[in-house]
Amino acid sequence: MKVTKFGGSSLASSQQIKKVFNIIRADKTRKFVIVSAPGKRSSADTKVTDALIAYHAAYKNHEDVTPHQEWIIQRYRDIYDELGLSSPVIETIAQNIRDLATLPIEGNKFLYDTFLAAGENNNAKLIADYFSSQGLPSRYVHPADAGIIVNSDPGNARLLPTSYAKIKYLNELPETLIIPGFFGVTENGEVCTFSRGGSDITGSIVAAGVKAELYENFTDVDGIFAAHPGIVKNPHGIKELTYREMRELAYSGFSVLHDEALVPAYRAHVPLVIKNTNNPEHPGTRIVVKRETKGAPVVGIASSSGFSTLYLSKYLLNREVGFGRRVLTALENLGIRFEHMPTGIDDISLIIRSRYLNQPIEKALIANLTESLHPDELYIEHNFSIIMLVGEDMKEHIGVTARAAAALSRNNINIEMLTQGSSEVSVMFIVKEKDEKVALRAIYDEFFAEN
Amino acid sequence: MKVTKFGGSSLASSQQIKKVFNIIRADKTRKFVIVSAPGKRSSADTKVTDALIAYHAAYKNHEDVTPHQEWIIQRYRDIYDELGLSSPVIETIAQNIRDLATLPIEGNKFLYDTFLAAGENNNAKLIADYFSSQGLPSRYVHPADAGIIVNSDPGNARLLPTSYAKIKYLNELPETLIIPGFFGVTENGEVCTFSRGGSDITGSIVAAGVKAELYENFTDVDGIFAAHPGIVKNPHGIKELTYREMRELAYSGFSVLHDEALVPAYRAHVPLVIKNTNNPEHPGTRIVVKRETKGAPVVGIASSSGFSTLYLSKYLLNREVGFGRRVLTALENLGIRFEHMPTGIDDISLIIRSRYLNQPIEKALIANLTESLHPDELYIEHNFSIIMLVGEDMKEHIGVTARAAAALSRNNINIEMLTQGSSEVSVMFIVKEKDEKVALRAIYDEFFAEN
Repeated sequence: MKVTKFGGSSLASSQQIKKVFNIIRADKTRKFVIVSAPGKRSSADTKVTDALIAYHAAYKNHEDVTPHQEWIIQRYRDIYDELGLSSPVIETIAQNIRDLATLPIEGNKFLYDTFLAAGENNNAKLIADYFSSQGLPSRYVHPADAGIIVNSDPGNARLLPTSYAKIKYLNELPETLIIPGFFGVTENGEVCTFSRGGSDITGSIVAAGVKAELYENFTDVDGIFAAHPGIVKNPHGIKELTYREMRELAYSGFSVLHDEALVPAYRAHVPLVIKNTNNPEHPGTRIVVKRETKGAPVVGIASSSGFSTLYLSKYLLNREVGFGRRVLTALENLGIRFEHMPTGIDDISLIIRSRYLNQPIEKALIANLTESLHPDELYIEHNFSIIMLVGEDMKEHIGVTARAAAALSRNNINIEMLTQGSSEVSVMFIVKEKDEKVALRAIYDEFFAEN
Repeated sequence: MKVTKFGGSSLASSQQIKKVFNIIRADKTRKFVIVSAPGKRSSADTKVTDALIAYHAAYKNHEDVTPHQEWIIQRYRDIYDELGLSSPVIETIAQNIRDLATLPIEGNKFLYDTFLAAGENNNAKLIADYFSSQGLPSRYVHPADAGIIVNSDPGNARLLPTSYAKIKYLNELPETLIIPGFFGVTENGEVCTFSRGGSDITGSIVAAGVKAELYENFTDVDGIFAAHPGIVKNPHGIKELTYREMRELAYSGFSVLHDEALVPAYRAHVPLVIKNTNNPEHPGTRIVVKRETKGAPVVGIASSSGFSTLYLSKYLLNREVGFGRRVLTALENLGIRFEHMPTGIDDISLIIRSRYLNQPIEKALIANLTESLHPDELYIEHNFSIIMLVGEDMKEHIGVTARAAAALSRNNINIEMLTQGSSEVSVMFIVKEKDEKVALRAIYDEFFAEN
């Protein structure tokens, strides 16, 4: 069986929902459907979730909530009418939206989450009714009934590990199940939302819980591109990625799925496919735990700006046992995370995201390291970008680094730093921020232009 | 004024000592002469220091010491006779050698050091007399009189920082000063030797103490080669190196001077030159704090085997604050030093000298890291070599890494790991041990073959 998740743009209108229905009907194994709240129909439109945020603010400030309620109910009613439904579900939805404004405000830490979750929750009811009306027996399942039980951390809910056993029970239900994404319930039955990538998290949890054969994630793109389309013209689509490759690309600037959302599916060894609701015939990008066949050396090239470097050198530093640990402790004490640490013999470079630094923090760090290590040289520099070549099969191909380095050299770009660990899942080049785009295009052309 | 140090092979025979005299006489600024014990005259010969080790063992075991004494005394007498000396110095030397066997054995932690140091000490007396006999007023100066006062750590003496003020006083003496290398005296007057590179340390200390304009280190080679002559045929000699470059090369397998020996000269900003006693006209290799003129991108290429790697990966590792520090702490607790730490997004590779590892230590390390980090993958691999490209001017040249990587690729050698920090003094390639020699030759040819 498959878990199939649809994003907000795939559910923004009756037209889109019909596409979704056709997708589900086309494959009997698509039993678990995770839905988002209705998204924008056009760039000028308002997302239902954003309307709920405004409704919550008005309610909390004791303002008139009627226009908010009416706009949201009308949004669902438009879809309901266009889909030609006649069931009482629209009254249930309208009542649910209105009832939000009866919840206690004071001391209710779940209020905001309950407002927000109403977008997904009511959409799931509507879609289940529509699917059933089209002859596909479907059942709306609230997360409380699906067994998605979470801890009490509003906006950042974590699944309780015991939940998987309950979720597995969903396999017993005969219908196609429509589950709202983005939230779970606490053991006391309170609505509590996940963090960023919320509906993706629900899909990932359900896929792991029911032990799905595949987790399908439908969006509005044909999958993941080998490089950012805003920098490289018409980049190739990626057919298959491993979770590790996706993680490396996500880290370095790709932003199709939030990587933390995928942990449950990854740990349960469920493969994932990213597909396009508007072009379902396209095979999309498949994300697997392990690749079956060997592929090209480089599957994708990411780039990301906003990096700084700290450089420390001292004659015979290498002889001082524990110097590396002392440097990292100094960083940790100031709450600074380091990304990478290329070392020479008597020097260390630390690559740090610039957002962790500011003048007072830099001053404290320099003072701390000066006192504990008495370095010969110590300074911080800004405005670096990373270029990340990703591909698990790189280790089968000799010369990948040489080709990438030569492409940079031909374009007169200096490699400020470079690190390639023994995993060989990725090679990371550090270049000046001003060189980032040219560097990405040069390396993309080297590995993809001829194909 | 210059400090000029001669190694054992430069002082092994009267013929060699005559060369040394000519070198000193040729330059009036060569005021401070540091001498080693007589080395081997041929490959079958015994070094005086080794004869002293045997003598010490016999004495300590209450065996007959006479044959040892006679061999050593005869060794000095041969040189004395060949040099045509007639002064009473040979009797002083003979007495000194015999008197060693009157020192207390029990509770004398300086006994071994005192035996060993006699090689350098008596050679200095002989050479001072010879120089004077040739019309160059020379004075033998015992380290106690030179102000080389050290702590009481036999075999690993460290200069007391207050000594430099005393050493500076040597500038006041009118003669050419002949100072035995390899040892100092404690505050109680006990002889205490330096660690590896002992006479180089004395030279470096005196150079710093007298604020020499140059520290000349005479050996039996024309200086430092750009690559190991045992692997690369007729490698180019290096004209000038910085201390940092020399340090990087020494770390990675070059073994002309022991780098720790050079710290006093480096800190006092005294330049060093490595020259050949048998070819003093050759300019040798100059080692400076800072290079005056820009040079070629790569000054030398070193290689070294005996490295292992530890690999650790975990999905979302990068999100765990402090994971790097925890890995390094685990190593430190087991007394393991790491050399480098190239990182991917969710993985760390640690490069470790294999000699720090063995089965029980590896087992403990794996157990410790498994418990504290719950990695997805964790393993240790052996038989790696490092290839190190060194040159402070690399940063002025784009494409150095690309050229080196391409040279490896053309020779079908996989780059297992690679790190280039922001100092750009060096780029380090990790290859399989079996590929080391081919890799070194390939990179050497790339940067030096056309010159």
